[in-house]
Amino acid sequence: MNIALAQINPIVGDLTGNARKILDYARRAKAQGADLAVFPELCISGYPPQDLLDNSTFIEAVQHTLAHLAAEAPRDMGLIVGAPVRNPAPVGKRLFNAAFLFENGETLGTVYKTLLPTYDVFDEYRHFESSPSRHLVLWRGYKLGLHICEDMWNNEEEAPFYLYAANPIDELAALGAELFINISASPFSYGKHDVRNRLIEESCREHGLPFVFVNTVGANTEIIFDGDSRVHAADGTRLLCAPSFEEHLMLWDSNAPQTACTMQHDAIADLHDALAMGIHDYFHKTGAFSKALIGLSGGIDSAVTCALAANALGSDKVVGVTMPSRYSSTGSVSDSEALAENLGIEFHEIAIKPAVSAFEGMLAPAFAGTTPGVAEENIQSRTRGLTLMALSNKFNYLLLSTGNKSEMAVGYVTLYGDTNGGVAVLSDVLKTRVYELARYINRRAGREIIPENTITKPPSAELRPDQKDEDSLPPYAVLDEILRRYIEEWEELDTIVSHTGFDAALVHDILRRVDRNEYKRRQAPPGLRVTHKAFGLGRRLPIVMRWNRAAIRALAQESSVE
Amino acid sequence: MNIALAQINPIVGDLTGNARKILDYARRAKAQGADLAVFPELCISGYPPQDLLDNSTFIEAVQHTLAHLAAEAPRDMGLIVGAPVRNPAPVGKRLFNAAFLFENGETLGTVYKTLLPTYDVFDEYRHFESSPSRHLVLWRGYKLGLHICEDMWNNEEEAPFYLYAANPIDELAALGAELFINISASPFSYGKHDVRNRLIEESCREHGLPFVFVNTVGANTEIIFDGDSRVHAADGTRLLCAPSFEEHLMLWDSNAPQTACTMQHDAIADLHDALAMGIHDYFHKTGAFSKALIGLSGGIDSAVTCALAANALGSDKVVGVTMPSRYSSTGSVSDSEALAENLGIEFHEIAIKPAVSAFEGMLAPAFAGTTPGVAEENIQSRTRGLTLMALSNKFNYLLLSTGNKSEMAVGYVTLYGDTNGGVAVLSDVLKTRVYELARYINRRAGREIIPENTITKPPSAELRPDQKDEDSLPPYAVLDEILRRYIEEWEELDTIVSHTGFDAALVHDILRRVDRNEYKRRQAPPGLRVTHKAFGLGRRLPIVMRWNRAAIRALAQESSVE
Repeated sequence: MNIALAQINPIVGDLTGNARKILDYARRAKAQGADLAVFPELCISGYPPQDLLDNSTFIEAVQHTLAHLAAEAPRDMGLIVGAPVRNPAPVGKRLFNAAFLFENGETLGTVYKTLLPTYDVFDEYRHFESSPSRHLVLWRGYKLGLHICEDMWNNEEEAPFYLYAANPIDELAALGAELFINISASPFSYGKHDVRNRLIEESCREHGLPFVFVNTVGANTEIIFDGDSRVHAADGTRLLCAPSFEEHLMLWDSNAPQTACTMQHDAIADLHDALAMGIHDYFHKTGAFSKALIGLSGGIDSAVTCALAANALGSDKVVGVTMPSRYSSTGSVSDSEALAENLGIEFHEIAIKPAVSAFEGMLAPAFAGTTPGVAEENIQSRTRGLTLMALSNKFNYLLLSTGNKSEMAVGYVTLYGDTNGGVAVLSDVLKTRVYELARYINRRAGREIIPENTITKPPSAELRPDQKDEDSLPPYAVLDEILRRYIEEWEELDTIVSHTGFDAALVHDILRRVDRNEYKRRQAPPGLRVTHKAFGLGRRLPIVMRWNRAAIRALAQESSVE
Repeated sequence: MNIALAQINPIVGDLTGNARKILDYARRAKAQGADLAVFPELCISGYPPQDLLDNSTFIEAVQHTLAHLAAEAPRDMGLIVGAPVRNPAPVGKRLFNAAFLFENGETLGTVYKTLLPTYDVFDEYRHFESSPSRHLVLWRGYKLGLHICEDMWNNEEEAPFYLYAANPIDELAALGAELFINISASPFSYGKHDVRNRLIEESCREHGLPFVFVNTVGANTEIIFDGDSRVHAADGTRLLCAPSFEEHLMLWDSNAPQTACTMQHDAIADLHDALAMGIHDYFHKTGAFSKALIGLSGGIDSAVTCALAANALGSDKVVGVTMPSRYSSTGSVSDSEALAENLGIEFHEIAIKPAVSAFEGMLAPAFAGTTPGVAEENIQSRTRGLTLMALSNKFNYLLLSTGNKSEMAVGYVTLYGDTNGGVAVLSDVLKTRVYELARYINRRAGREIIPENTITKPPSAELRPDQKDEDSLPPYAVLDEILRRYIEEWEELDTIVSHTGFDAALVHDILRRVDRNEYKRRQAPPGLRVTHKAFGLGRRLPIVMRWNRAAIRALAQESSVE
């Protein structure tokens, strides 16, 4: 049997465009001799369709698209695609997340998703009913263990806790499956490739079955799908691997001699490519912009964002603007200029003094007798933000915001100032990892892209004389360790202190800053998600709340006394 | 039996504060002779706790708080409270949404929520496992049909579709319940009071049982709870009604002679009070602000927002600022001044010309040869937004954003300009209803609060000479009808056209504008939710997407031909 794995990049909602792409890949698969072409989860609608699924006209349109696909697909080849479909029962959620096997215009198999991720960025139980049962798909005499994404993820052998009662993989094996086929929309996160390797290898070995995994690729608003489609042999060996972060069609002949795939992944390279794809797809899938625009401060975040944009879109599609103020170091302009030159991008300088002075004059009566502080600092940042948005509005530039995860976490950003933008490129990348990215970018280019001075000088917002980030924050190595544990692992005060030995008052202060700055993050642009816990869709916290660690400690002591 | 209904206003996360409040109400209930005091759903944690529930230290702290409450509550009185608790099983979601009945330090009953709303603003299956079974709570010989919020909502007699298979109300009745007790965190929406009346009346009549409904009250970030707690007799008659939008304790003696409650609700008055509570609770629960700040344009939205703020916080806690530009009408300043005078609030005028001119100068080289347009208009709006944020930062003012739902829908707002603010007061109120609110505010005051000229002049953004909203938008009566049907009812193009007779091209254009402006709404402040479908938490749509109504029409015709 010759199976084509079609790792495609659909656009959410673009039913006709996605169908055209699926037909194109199906025809190429057929031309290469495929018996069966497998496409990703919800490839008709794109993933995540979110509340488009509440639009019944959209669901009808999906039905029409499926009929069109079944009719137009190449003859004498199976076609597996994913789409949302109506739940025919008068009870439960109104839709199923379904996989269909078509051939010669007929529907030969239909499978509904059983395990519906409803955590982190996933909201599947918002729309979908869980499949009440598991069954095999019989096709040309083969017993296919076809299932959808999360259905393969409840399979750890010795877990202390299972999120779901059902284990579709085990059930399909027990029903006599000869081959697992998983169609996924499984997002990228740092290190996820290795997790998938382990999970699929274990599933193969446990059941002695080969495994075909077809994942979607591309970025849809904030969620990035890496692809990473593959075939594993019954003993777990990875036989065939698709390159990550690009569309790919590959064929697996199950009867040919099998050799292992040796493709290696480098975590920082994957991170780079994920972010570049995030920029690329936001830009091209909206189709609304002429170029990308970045405010260059001479610092590491804007430099890395700019290099990623140039990589994603081409140097001719990137505009950098430096906007010095009276507090800017000379490096602010010269390092930005060097970066722009290294990248070969369009570069402008617009000094912000006129507007800042105007605001100072306008506000002088109201501010009389007060001490300069955050309000004055923010005027500078917001003047820059306004200047960039004026350029964006005038020339249809996509403004990229440059704040990193560490800053966004503790609120070391100015709302309506440096947070401005259509997409936040680094908002899921801790500052220490932004440095890793900078070094990787230079290493990969084999020359200086990010100026050395940008990498080595102490980070500063340059909003008052001689300001340094470390005046307001602990060293980033310490800060990031606290943030990673709190945000990505949900470790709390005591656990973090006992694991790291950091000062309890410091950790307490940082956690409170994270909690209190939810209001800034709620209004931030969508941020490219590259860890298993990013701000935004995947981390939903109240703005108005009083989780008081100190008060509760007293109560805990009282109740342990009783 | 004497039952106390404690309609309280918890703060999300404030375990010790909420426990203190519960004990206070419990003691007052006991002093008034209560046998049983009933508190709302999740009253320990506040609702919605969102991903605070992922913090295991928080869940432990809830446990301590429950132990504290059970120990400290008045003796010889039952106490029903709601809290998240760990799921003891090694499978499923890690928590239950639970109700406990305590008396004399002992737990006499525990009930888990069965129906977990996971739609609109609700994410309960993100955190909670559904109760596997229903049972009665036996207390002092009574069989209590205790259940939680949504558990009473699957009870329509003749529905075409049931969201859930289970019907806890029916099951509890079949088990022999003598009384329904529902503890809720059921949000307000326009007209919800009447829906609750009908649903509870029907449940009583169907099963011949009385019904005690205890709802939470207060606003938590964007969600507003009206309270509306009540007791219904076995024949459905409403016997006892709590006032909406305030904390309230009331006792029901089931053995005393029963008379019907005659309290009437007025939908527009409820809307007013809901919005005022939204402002009040955001301001006071965060405790971070000295006053509220509103940019006054002389238009209806800022005037209504300002009147609501003065009602919610007191005139001495509200600051209005008018910021005229070269395009401002004289009414812009004089109507704002009149409003400020009518309300007795602090009022300032800051002309924006200096900053606008400065930006024009700064951008002149870049803008050379271009025609003035949206970029220049937005500079004005953003200069105002920046000025307001400077005042907010300097004096700890809570900036209230004033955009209405109609504008937010079609993107007739400037991101980082007039959308700036901590909370969007009117973002769930269509423009035509903003006018209703204005008239209600004047009617209620018995004098002019909102200046007549503000109500009667044609709406304008005043960002270019002689600009009127109706230059860019259809009349608001038409626009709002289209928006209500699309956003609140998910009607699509054909349905809207056939229901309204509006021009199809116009409707198509409006729907596209709604779809395309998701990026502005994603960065908007949290907006007070007062309909069953508000922007924000309850309406989750992709920014990057291509739902193309025209393309799909061709496909539908093709597939109907086949």
